[in-house]
Amino acid sequence: MNQDYIIPNEWSIIEEGFDTTRVKSSESLFALGNGAMGQRANFEELYTGPTFQGSYIAGVYYPDKTRVGWWKNGYPEYFAKVLNAPNWIGIDVWINNEQLDLYRCTSIEDFKRELNMKEGWYTRSFTATLQNSVKIAVEVTRFLSLSTDQVGAIDYKITPVNQEAEIRFEPYLDAGITNEDSNWDDQFWQVTSVNAKGSQAFIEAHTMKTFFSTCTFMETQFIKDGEKASGEPSVTKDDKSVRFSYSAQAKKGETLAVQKFGGYTVDRNHDKDQLVTSAKAVLKEVTTKGFDQLLAEQKQAWAEIWKMGDITIDGDVKAQQAIRFNIFQLNQTYLGTDASLNIGPKGFTGEKYGGSTYWDTEAYCIPFYMATKDQGVARNLLTYRYQHLGKAIENAEKLGFSNGAALYPMVTMNGEECHNEWEITFEEIHRNGAIAFAIFNYYRFTGDYSYIPEKGLEVLIGIARFWQQRANFSTSKNKYVILGVTGPNEYENNVNNNWYTNYIAKWCIDYAVEQLDKVKEEYASDYARIFKETKLTQGEIDQWKEVADHMYFPYSNEHEVFLQQDGFLDKELNPVDQLAMSERPINQYWSWDRILRSPYIKQADTLQGFYFFEDHFTKEELKKHFDFYEPFTVHESSLSPCVHSVLAASLDDMEMAYTFYLRTSRLDLDDYNKEVHEGLHITSMAGTWMSIVEGFGGMRVKDNQLHFSPKIPKEWNSYSFKVNFRDQIITVSVTKEGASFNVEGDQELTLVVDGKEKHIAPKEKMSI
Amino acid sequence: MNQDYIIPNEWSIIEEGFDTTRVKSSESLFALGNGAMGQRANFEELYTGPTFQGSYIAGVYYPDKTRVGWWKNGYPEYFAKVLNAPNWIGIDVWINNEQLDLYRCTSIEDFKRELNMKEGWYTRSFTATLQNSVKIAVEVTRFLSLSTDQVGAIDYKITPVNQEAEIRFEPYLDAGITNEDSNWDDQFWQVTSVNAKGSQAFIEAHTMKTFFSTCTFMETQFIKDGEKASGEPSVTKDDKSVRFSYSAQAKKGETLAVQKFGGYTVDRNHDKDQLVTSAKAVLKEVTTKGFDQLLAEQKQAWAEIWKMGDITIDGDVKAQQAIRFNIFQLNQTYLGTDASLNIGPKGFTGEKYGGSTYWDTEAYCIPFYMATKDQGVARNLLTYRYQHLGKAIENAEKLGFSNGAALYPMVTMNGEECHNEWEITFEEIHRNGAIAFAIFNYYRFTGDYSYIPEKGLEVLIGIARFWQQRANFSTSKNKYVILGVTGPNEYENNVNNNWYTNYIAKWCIDYAVEQLDKVKEEYASDYARIFKETKLTQGEIDQWKEVADHMYFPYSNEHEVFLQQDGFLDKELNPVDQLAMSERPINQYWSWDRILRSPYIKQADTLQGFYFFEDHFTKEELKKHFDFYEPFTVHESSLSPCVHSVLAASLDDMEMAYTFYLRTSRLDLDDYNKEVHEGLHITSMAGTWMSIVEGFGGMRVKDNQLHFSPKIPKEWNSYSFKVNFRDQIITVSVTKEGASFNVEGDQELTLVVDGKEKHIAPKEKMSI
Repeated sequence: MNQDYIIPNEWSIIEEGFDTTRVKSSESLFALGNGAMGQRANFEELYTGPTFQGSYIAGVYYPDKTRVGWWKNGYPEYFAKVLNAPNWIGIDVWINNEQLDLYRCTSIEDFKRELNMKEGWYTRSFTATLQNSVKIAVEVTRFLSLSTDQVGAIDYKITPVNQEAEIRFEPYLDAGITNEDSNWDDQFWQVTSVNAKGSQAFIEAHTMKTFFSTCTFMETQFIKDGEKASGEPSVTKDDKSVRFSYSAQAKKGETLAVQKFGGYTVDRNHDKDQLVTSAKAVLKEVTTKGFDQLLAEQKQAWAEIWKMGDITIDGDVKAQQAIRFNIFQLNQTYLGTDASLNIGPKGFTGEKYGGSTYWDTEAYCIPFYMATKDQGVARNLLTYRYQHLGKAIENAEKLGFSNGAALYPMVTMNGEECHNEWEITFEEIHRNGAIAFAIFNYYRFTGDYSYIPEKGLEVLIGIARFWQQRANFSTSKNKYVILGVTGPNEYENNVNNNWYTNYIAKWCIDYAVEQLDKVKEEYASDYARIFKETKLTQGEIDQWKEVADHMYFPYSNEHEVFLQQDGFLDKELNPVDQLAMSERPINQYWSWDRILRSPYIKQADTLQGFYFFEDHFTKEELKKHFDFYEPFTVHESSLSPCVHSVLAASLDDMEMAYTFYLRTSRLDLDDYNKEVHEGLHITSMAGTWMSIVEGFGGMRVKDNQLHFSPKIPKEWNSYSFKVNFRDQIITVSVTKEGASFNVEGDQELTLVVDGKEKHIAPKEKMSI
Repeated sequence: MNQDYIIPNEWSIIEEGFDTTRVKSSESLFALGNGAMGQRANFEELYTGPTFQGSYIAGVYYPDKTRVGWWKNGYPEYFAKVLNAPNWIGIDVWINNEQLDLYRCTSIEDFKRELNMKEGWYTRSFTATLQNSVKIAVEVTRFLSLSTDQVGAIDYKITPVNQEAEIRFEPYLDAGITNEDSNWDDQFWQVTSVNAKGSQAFIEAHTMKTFFSTCTFMETQFIKDGEKASGEPSVTKDDKSVRFSYSAQAKKGETLAVQKFGGYTVDRNHDKDQLVTSAKAVLKEVTTKGFDQLLAEQKQAWAEIWKMGDITIDGDVKAQQAIRFNIFQLNQTYLGTDASLNIGPKGFTGEKYGGSTYWDTEAYCIPFYMATKDQGVARNLLTYRYQHLGKAIENAEKLGFSNGAALYPMVTMNGEECHNEWEITFEEIHRNGAIAFAIFNYYRFTGDYSYIPEKGLEVLIGIARFWQQRANFSTSKNKYVILGVTGPNEYENNVNNNWYTNYIAKWCIDYAVEQLDKVKEEYASDYARIFKETKLTQGEIDQWKEVADHMYFPYSNEHEVFLQQDGFLDKELNPVDQLAMSERPINQYWSWDRILRSPYIKQADTLQGFYFFEDHFTKEELKKHFDFYEPFTVHESSLSPCVHSVLAASLDDMEMAYTFYLRTSRLDLDDYNKEVHEGLHITSMAGTWMSIVEGFGGMRVKDNQLHFSPKIPKEWNSYSFKVNFRDQIITVSVTKEGASFNVEGDQELTLVVDGKEKHIAPKEKMSI
C-alpha cells in the first residue's frame, strides 16, 4: 500500500482536503467514462500545478513512429497511441479579474471530491480565497451520459462568500492539446474548422495519418438567480480553440452558474461530413431534456448496470468499496455495444501502454462480461479478434510463418502489432492461446455454439497452424519443443519449453481438431466453406496432431511439478520471503539480467495454466504446484494476485485468498505499485471480480452445469453476487452460516454446489 | 561481394570514373587518419549529391541521451557518440562565379581517386565542364601528417582547359556541423570564438556536456604561376565559420592553386587557454617546412611503419591490396602513443556504433599491435583498461555486484558503459574474459611480466570476483552454472551455460589465482599493496576456486563436442548450406526470434574458445568442434571469418582458410555486408592480419618460444611478414617450396618450426 487518503465508503470514492501532490493520482481515481469517451478528473478551470490532462475517445488513436534503440526486423513501424483528444470540459473562471487557479489561491477549505459509483456522477466542491481576498464557494458536478453517450454535462456553481464580486465564466473548447506519451513530439491533430453560433461551438479536427474525423462541441447556459439567463455569450476564437464569456456581478451569498453540455461526434458513428450536424442534433436532444433530466437518466442507467453487476460485501467497507470501484471502472471503459472497440489497459484514465487490446481481454475480462452482461457483449469481444484474423496472418508472415498461420499481436488497435520489444513482440506468443481459450470459454459458459462454425473455427485453424509451425522436433528429446519464448511470467525471456506455452499450444491444436470434427458433423455447409477457404487438408491436420501428441513438457521428478521452463532448477531457488523489502519491487531495483536469472515470477505462469485447465489436474497436483511456485512469485504484474486468490480459495486457504483479494481489488485505490497517477489498471479489475465469484464463490462451468463451492473470508459477515448463466440470473448469497441461491427467469436450473446437484425452481431461494 | 569498382593494385586503392551512387562508399574507403584525427574522403568543394560528411578527433565525444523503446534499470543515461568535428578541409571553388559542384556539372571526365597506402596520401583528379561551359582540370592532394599529427595539408590545383576563366577559391573552417548519428538532434558543439588574421583563421569550440575544448585552424596560401602569391585573402565570418577568398584570372592551361594547412589543437594535449597559441605554433612549424617537405616526411613516416608492418603477397594482387589496406587502416586509426585512446570500430571513417572500445581491441587488435609495434603500444592498450577499473567496479555495482567485482563495459569511451540493449549490455559479459586474456597474451608474447604486479593483477582480481559472484550453484547439476548470458555469438541471447563464457570464466579465476601466487612469490611488496587495497582474503580466493573447480560445461556425448549452450541440440540442426541465398544475410531477412531459435551462428563462439585456448585441446578435438560448428556459422559478424581462417589453416584445410581470408580481408573493399558507406570495419582488420600470420604462418608462442607452421594457399606464389618478438625482428618468407626465417637484432633466437626447434643466429637466414 502506498496511499490511504481515499475515504472508505460503500458506494463512493471520496477525497477530502486539497493536496497538490495528490492531484495527478486523483485525476486517475476520479476519472469518468461511458464506453464511448472519457477523461481524467482534470479541473474545469485553470490549474497551473502538476497535472496530467487527458480526454480520450474510444477507437481514436494515432500511429506514433516507433522509437527503439536498436531496430530488429519485424518490428512494426508504428505504435498505436491512445490519443489525448480536444478538451471540451474547460471552464475558465475569473473573480474580479483574477483567474481562479487552485495552485495559486491563498487558502482552500473544505475541498472534497466524490465519485458516486451508484449513480455515475462526480462532484468537486471547495471554498477558496483568491489572492485578491475574494472568498468563493465552488461546487461542480460532472457526468458522462450513458443514455446519450456522445455527451457529457457539467454544472459549475460559484458563490462569493465574503463580499460581492464580478464573476466571469469562460467555457471553451480547445484542440491545441498534446500527449503525455509521445515518441517524437509529432502533431497528432489537424483542426479543420472552428465555429461558434449563439451558445453553441464546434471544432472539427482529424487525427494525422489515421484520419479519424471528430467534432468536439459544446453548448452552454448561464444561470443567475437559479434561472437561465437570456442573451448570448461573447465569443473569441483562434485556429484551434473557441471560448465563450459570461460575466455578472454576484452579491455575497448569491450563486452564479454555468451549465455546459459537450462531447464528441465521430466518424465511427456518423458520416464524416455530418459531424457538426450530428452534434447539433445531440445538443438539441440533451438541452431539451436539460441537466437534471439527463442526470436522472444517468442514475437510472447505472441502476440497471448495478442490478446485474453489483457485488455486496457486508462487514468490510474497504473491500466493498474496492469491488464496486473495479466493477464501476470496467463498465465505464467498455459496455460491449461495438465489436470494433476493446478494453484498453488504462481505459480512459491514461495513455501508458498505448494500444487498446492485450490478451488481458480474453484471459481476464471476458469471464466478467460473460457473467454480468448479455452474451452478445462477450461475443462482440470474440468477433473483434475474428475481424483481425487477416492481420494476424499477415503478422505471422512477417515473422516467417506461412499457409494461414496466425499470430495475434501483443498489443493492438486495429489488428496490427504495435509493440516493439523483441522478447515480447516476437516471443510472448502464448497470447494466441488465450484467444483460442476464450472461444472455448465462451461456448462453455454461454452454450452458444453458433459462434464456432460462423467465426471461431477459422481463428482456431489459424492458431493451430501457428503452433504446429512454431514447434520443432528435437531429436535429442524425441519430442516437439517450442524454443525461444516469453511466457506470461515476463521475468523470463527467450526461454525454451515454457510449460504454459507448450501446454496451451497442444491444447489449442487438440481443441481445433475437436471443433473441426464437430463442425464437420453438425454444420456441414460451414465446414465445407471453411475447409475450402482455409485450404485445409487432412494431411495438414495430421501434422498438427503429430505435434500435439508429442509435445514436450519439462517436469521435475524430484519436486513432482512441471517446470516453468527448461533449466528452471538451475536457479538459486531462494523464496521471495528471503528478499529484502528494500529491493522490492525488484523491477524498480534490479537490473534486467538479475531479474531474469532469479527464480522470481512476475505473474502466474505455470499456475495460470492450472487456472485455465484446472480440471485437467487433481487437487493434489494443484497444491503441489501452488506450493512450489507461489513462494517465488512477486506479483509485480497487476494480473497476478487474482489468479493466486482464486487458486488459494480452491485449495481452501481462505487467509491467503483474502490477502490476494485485497491486493488486487485495492491496487489502484491504495496505489500499491506507485503509479496510479499514470492511470488505472482497468483490465486487472476483472481479476478482482474473478477472485470473488470464481475464488470465494467457487463458480465453474462443467458439462453445461454451473458449479459453486462457496467460502467466505473470516473478515466478512456476508457477500453476494449475481451471474447471468444462459439467460438465467442466479443470485448467490454467502454468509458464515452457509450459502443461498436464487434463480430469476422461467426455467428450473440445476446447480452443482460443493459437488452435489441441486435443482432450483424459478424464483425459489435455496439455502445450503 | 557487393561491389568491384576498386581497381586491384599492390599499393594503392584506386577508383576510376565518377558515379554518384559510389560517393558515400568511396568516402569511407579513401578516408584518412593519423591516430589523432581523421576524416572521410569528403570533397573539399561543395557537393550537393548524397554524401556523409565526417571529420573526427581522437578522444572527443558527446554523451548523447540514450534512446530506447523500453527502459530497463541499469541502462546508462547516455551513449558516448563519436562526434563529427568542425570541418577544416573545406575549399569552395567558383569558376566565373559558378560554384563547382560535381553533382551539377554537365560532364565529368577522367575522375580518379587514389589512396597511396605506401606513402600515406590521397589524390583526386578530374576534368569537369560546368554549366557555364567552362571546362577545368582539377587535381587535389591531401594527407594527414604523421610527423605533426595535429595538422593535415591540402594542395588544390585548378587549370582551365577550354578557355580563360576567373577562379575563386574560398577555403574555410566551419563549426556549424551536425552528426549523422544523433538521438535527439542535440546541439553538440558550442563555438566560443571565431578569429582570422592574415592568412590564418581559428575557431574555438567546445563540446556540450563533455567540454572538450578544441581549436580548429587553417592557414592558406594562394599559388599562381607556381609561385606563392603575395597579399592576404579577403575574410568573411559569422558566429560559426570563417572563410577566405582568393580570386584571379587564369589563362587557358594556366594552373592556380591553394595550399591549405589545417587541423585541430585540443585540450588533451594543451592547456585549454592556449589552443590558439598552440595552433599558431603548429602552423609556424609546418608552413616553415612547406607542403612538399611535409609530404616528404609523410612518406618517410609511412616507410617506417611499413618496414615493420608490411606483409607481401606474390601472385594475388587483390589479396596483396587487401592485406595492405587492412594494415594501413589500423595504423591510420591507432598508433599506440596515448593510453587514453583506443581503437574505435569505425576508426575515423564513420559514426556507427558510437563509443571507441569494444572487446575487439583485446581479442583481435592487441596481437597485431604486439607483433608489429614496440611492446609499449600493447601495454598502453592494457593500461587503458587498468585506468577504467574503478568505472568497471561501479558498473558492476549498478548490476548488483559488490566487493570490487568488475564488469567492463560492452562499449565505452571513458570507462562508463554506453550501450543499451539488455541482452548485450547486461548479458554479453564474456567481454571481461577477453580483457583478462589480453593480459595473459601480452605477457606470453612480450615476456614483460612487470605489467601484472604493477597494474594487471588488480584487473584480474576484479574480474575473478565478478565471475565468482555471477556464477551460482545448481543443485540439480551439482555444479556452478552461469545463467542468462549472451556469448560472442550474438545470435543467441539470454542463454544458460554458454560454453565459451563458462570456460573463460573458469580460466579467468584460475589465471588470477596463479598470478596471485606468482606475484606473492616474486613481487612481495606489490602483493602486499594489492592485497591490502583490494581487501582480498584467502577465504575469498577459496570461494573463487570452488567455482572454477566445479564449473559446468555443456557437452554432447553423442557428438563428442562441447555444446554452445544448454539446449543447443533441441534446435532444428539444418546446416547453412540448406539456407536459401535469398534469405541471407539472415539478419536482414529474418525476425529476431527466428534467428534466435535457429542453429545459425553469427560469429565463432565455441570455436573462439578453441582459438584462445588451442593448447588446452587436441587437434582431433578441434577438428570435431570445427566440423560440428562451422556448418552452422553464417559469419554475419566481421569478426567471424578470421577465426575460422586461422582454425582451418591449423587443421590443414588451406582451401577453406583462403576463402575465409578473402572474405575477411576484402570485407570493405568488396563491401560484402552492403554497409561500407557507413564507414570501415577497423577492428576486424586485425583479424585479417591474424589470418595470415597465425593462420597461414601458424605463429604461436609457447613456453617463451615462437612457433611457426607455415603453409601457403595454392593461389599464391609466396608471402612474407615480419614480427617483433621481444625486440627481435623475425622475417618469415613462405613459398610453395618452403619457408625461410631471418632474424634482425643481436641475439640468437630459437624458433620452433613445425614442432622442431631451430636456432637462428642474428642476420642469418634459415630456410626450411
